[in-house]
Order: sequence, then C-alpha cells, then structure tokens
Amino acid sequence: MSEARLIELWRGGLLESSHRGHVVIADSNGIVEAWGDPGAVIFPRSSCKMIQALPLVESGAADAAGLTSEHLALACASHNGAEMHTKRVENWLEGLGLSESDLRCGSHMPNDPEARKGLVCSGTSPCQLHNNCSGKHAGFLTLNQKLRGGPEYVELDHPVQMAVREAFEETTGERVAGWGVDGCSAPNFACSVEGLARAMAGFAKPANDSRGAAQRRLVEAMIAHPELVAGEGRACTELMRALGGKAALKTGAEAVFVGIVPERGLGIALKIVDGGTRGAEAAITALMLHLGLLSENDPAARKYLTAPQTNWRGRITGELRRAKGFPQ
Amino acid sequence: MSEARLIELWRGGLLESSHRGHVVIADSNGIVEAWGDPGAVIFPRSSCKMIQALPLVESGAADAAGLTSEHLALACASHNGAEMHTKRVENWLEGLGLSESDLRCGSHMPNDPEARKGLVCSGTSPCQLHNNCSGKHAGFLTLNQKLRGGPEYVELDHPVQMAVREAFEETTGERVAGWGVDGCSAPNFACSVEGLARAMAGFAKPANDSRGAAQRRLVEAMIAHPELVAGEGRACTELMRALGGKAALKTGAEAVFVGIVPERGLGIALKIVDGGTRGAEAAITALMLHLGLLSENDPAARKYLTAPQTNWRGRITGELRRAKGFPQ
Repeated sequence: MSEARLIELWRGGLLESSHRGHVVIADSNGIVEAWGDPGAVIFPRSSCKMIQALPLVESGAADAAGLTSEHLALACASHNGAEMHTKRVENWLEGLGLSESDLRCGSHMPNDPEARKGLVCSGTSPCQLHNNCSGKHAGFLTLNQKLRGGPEYVELDHPVQMAVREAFEETTGERVAGWGVDGCSAPNFACSVEGLARAMAGFAKPANDSRGAAQRRLVEAMIAHPELVAGEGRACTELMRALGGKAALKTGAEAVFVGIVPERGLGIALKIVDGGTRGAEAAITALMLHLGLLSENDPAARKYLTAPQTNWRGRITGELRRAKGFPQ
Repeated sequence: MSEARLIELWRGGLLESSHRGHVVIADSNGIVEAWGDPGAVIFPRSSCKMIQALPLVESGAADAAGLTSEHLALACASHNGAEMHTKRVENWLEGLGLSESDLRCGSHMPNDPEARKGLVCSGTSPCQLHNNCSGKHAGFLTLNQKLRGGPEYVELDHPVQMAVREAFEETTGERVAGWGVDGCSAPNFACSVEGLARAMAGFAKPANDSRGAAQRRLVEAMIAHPELVAGEGRACTELMRALGGKAALKTGAEAVFVGIVPERGLGIALKIVDGGTRGAEAAITALMLHLGLLSENDPAARKYLTAPQTNWRGRITGELRRAKGFPQ
C-alpha cells in the first residue's frame, strides 16, 4: 500500500500544501483502522520513549533509585528545557551521585522561551540538561547503575541499549528492521507503523504481570504530568491536558506521533512521510476528534487543526483540512 | 501527472522521510526539463517578489524615488530583519515622507540572531520594519506615490495590486488561477509551476523593451546584493554567493523556490508539496548541481544537500539524497 494523503493546507480556496503518511489504530486483537501502509518501516524516534523507559521500571531500577511519577514522566519526555525540567533532571542525577557530564545526549538551546532568553541574554551556552532528551538519558543512567554497565550507555551493544532493544522487540512484536543514531545519540530502532501501534495498544491494556505494571506506571505518569512530557505551548502537553486523562500522547522527530487510550484499549501510531511537525500534530488531533476524545472547538483542537490560519495582522489566510477519507 | 519524489532523508541505511513536489526548468521556448506535474497550480508566495516589483521599476516610480540596486534587492527580499535590512527600509520610507506605520505587512520577530537578541533582551516588540517583506512593501508604497492610490495598498482592487496582477499574468503567460492572502497581507496570485518557470525564464532572457530593462535591473540587483535578499545563514544568500553571479534564487513560504539563470536563459520553479523548507532548499541545490552551476563539495551545497546529517554531539546520523530519477 502507498502513502495516504492525510492533512491539507488550503489558501484562498485552493489547495496549497499537503501531508501524506501512514496511520494505524490497533487494539490487543490487531489493526482496528488504518490509512496508508501499516507495514511501512519507520523510526519512532522520541515517540517510543515509554518503551525505552520500560527496562528502567521493570528491572526495579526506578524503585531502587526512589523515582517518582515525575521522574517517569521525564524519562518519557521530549521536554522544552524549562527550569521545571532541567532542575528536576539535575536533582535526579545528583541523587544518583552523577552529574550533567555523565549524560551523552549533547547540548542544544532549549525551546522554552524563558529558558532560552535567560541563556541568550546572559551569553550562556546550553548544557546537556537542556537537551529535550535529558530525562530519558537520566533514566538510562539509572538503569545503568543496576546493570553495572560502562559510562558509554548509548552504544548499541551496551547493556542498557540491549535491554531497550529487547523491550522494543517484545512490545512491537517484531524483530527490529534496523537502527539509526538518534539526535540524542541513543540507538533508535526501526519497526512498522503497525508494530508501533501494537506496542501502544499493549501500554493501553497492560497484562497482569511485572511488565504490565511497569507499562501502567509509565502511562499514568505521562497522563499525570503533561507539562513534564513536553512543556508549555507544546502539542503533547496541550492535547493531553485537553484530553483530561483519557489518553497519553507522545511525538517524535520527523513527524511521528503515538497515542495510548487506556479506556478503549487502543494504541495509535502515525508517521507523516515528509517529517513535518505541522502534519503530525494535525493528524493526531484529527484522530482524537475521530475517537470522540476531543471536541472540534476545544482550544487545543483549534490550535492544531480546526481554527482558521491567520497572518501577522490576524487576517484569515486559510485553513487546515483533513483529506478526503481521513476521519472527519 | 502526479507528485514526484524528489528528496529523501536516510538514517541508519533506511529511508526515514521524503519530499514530493513539482519542478520545471524552462527557457523562452518552453519546458526544458520537468519532474512531477508542470500544470500543478501553486501559490508562489515570496518567490515571485521580483514580479511584484516589476511595476515599481517599469513605471518609473523607482527612478522617480531615486532607488538604488540595494533598494531593488530589498523589494525582492524575504529578509532576516537584521539591522542592514531594517535601517535601509526605514531610510527608504523616510525618503518617501512615510514611516513604519504606513506599512501593512504586520510585525514578527526577526530571524537574524543579533536583531532577535536585541529585542528579546531589551523586552522590545518587533515592528513592521522587521517583517521579512518590509522591503517589498516599501516598494509597493513607492509605486503607490506614482499611482496616487489610497493607503490600503494591499487590497486586491488597489491600483498597486492591480498593476502587480497585470505583471503576474503577463510574465507567467496565464490568467491567475485564484488568489490568497499572503503572510504579509498582500494578495498572492496562483499559477502553474510551468507558468512560474516561464516567468523566471523571461527574467533570465529579457526583451529589449522597458519591461526587459526592468527585469534586468531587478535580477542584477538580487545578484549584486545576496545578503539583502535574505540574510546571513539563509539559503538564498549562501547559494547565490556560491553561484558567483551565475543565478538569482528566491524562496517562498510553503517550500517554493525559483531560479533565474541569465547565462543560459533558463527559469526554474519548484514546489515541495508538503511545504517544508528542507525539501525546497535541497531540491534547488540539486538543480544547481544538475546544471553544473555549483559543485558537490561547495560549502553551500554541502549545507543544504550533500553533507552528512549530524546530531548534537556531531555524530553522523544520516544523509539527504536525491530520489531516483531526480538529477544526480
């Protein structure tokens, strides 16, 4: 099957741009609905952080380190590098007897306006705590204390990444189709869109075992702390707040988005093939509307899909639309 | 004909994302080469600013106001809002006996890091001079003094926009397929990709008449002042510098790019359907390589297409590739 057109940008009554992709909604029995090619192989990127955090919880490392639901939300986060994120990660590392220099995620300017302003105006360079993946890496370091691996925990053959790979293959139900180096230098394993949706369905309806318990804790942590999973002004945070606990959502670079809907036992995975954030945010919003979890007029739904597009003077220039065949 | 896959992002030996679009290379006789659908209707957005500036020069308004090639480059610019841009536009307006408040483009934060830092750290709001289109609007106001129109020069039926529409239809060789409100509130007229390439071919090989003279002056101004057409770190500026005067390039919002190659009499127009800048910049770079105007190892070619993709720690994560069938 080929890519399906999912989201369109209209201007002056004409189609200006469009986004194609693949979408799978799955439950414990398999595919419930799909658009595009469920078998398309993708890199989940940061959308699979709850899978990458599974060994941390399942192994008992999280409890041994006394991690709270805030820590678990940060382990699943692509955060804005606001003080509420960086301070918590800094204290987390300190609690492990470690520091920022033990991270291997690299540094980049935070997306949080205040944090960015503070650095820019003081001429200060960002550190690894500001990296949107620093919580995930603090989780890797926490697991590493239990596994007693070396300091280079992002190497493919490191015990931490071998544990992550095992969890990834078991939850997606697939052998990894390959791997790549992620923006934060951790290995990112490839799977099908169906496999990623299958994994999310597992998080939505966990088994009554230690893995299920770990999955439940991670989903509850994401839902309890939407502001820690991304940050103010970000889609994951604003949409999860609007969903009022009905679903956990997580984005990934290059336009991946996943959803976990416990009350329905549904898992969602989507990839916009052009890698553009606009299309992925609009598509996950469309799916929340389709499932009746969000209303067309909710401020978050309007921001990411249903409100008119406006310009610098506030004049209406066009609108985002769901392509024909993509759920209205 | 349908959209052609043009640019791909590969990671770990797997295709991660891809960009589809339409490309036409034309000369005075018509299409020379094309990918995708030459008849696809698009909004040129800012890529057609040299057409929007034609009435300014052809009418004699530019000479009457004593505009230099720097002014003409700014009239064709989507600039970064650096001091070199905003000061020139401010002085230009002052020379017309007008001010920032006469602009109708709206305000947004400048892309230039220093200008942005100055505003953010002093808690100052950006003004309309910072709008990337302020030079185009200063050109509209200059033409308006000659046409004696009202102050709302961005309205569709205003003499300035009627003159722009006439120039647009004559250079593209098409009746406009529709129009939309641009980000800067000016009308943006729709045409086919072929029509836009035809217009650029006209700028590449101007006739020996007053229009041709105006087209020649605008192309020479863009080529003479690449830093005024966009700004430091921007694709139009860096690629035009790398081309050493062989071509004028201009980008437009939603992933449009045009090229004017006087020495070959060629006009280029491309639209990446997803509206993503990455794809448009890589595609225009690929075309410059294809035409032998740029080398694979030129720093600008490397930045926008041929260099490996790296992450926050400088590790190679993948590469951009030209899709099969798109010129190597």
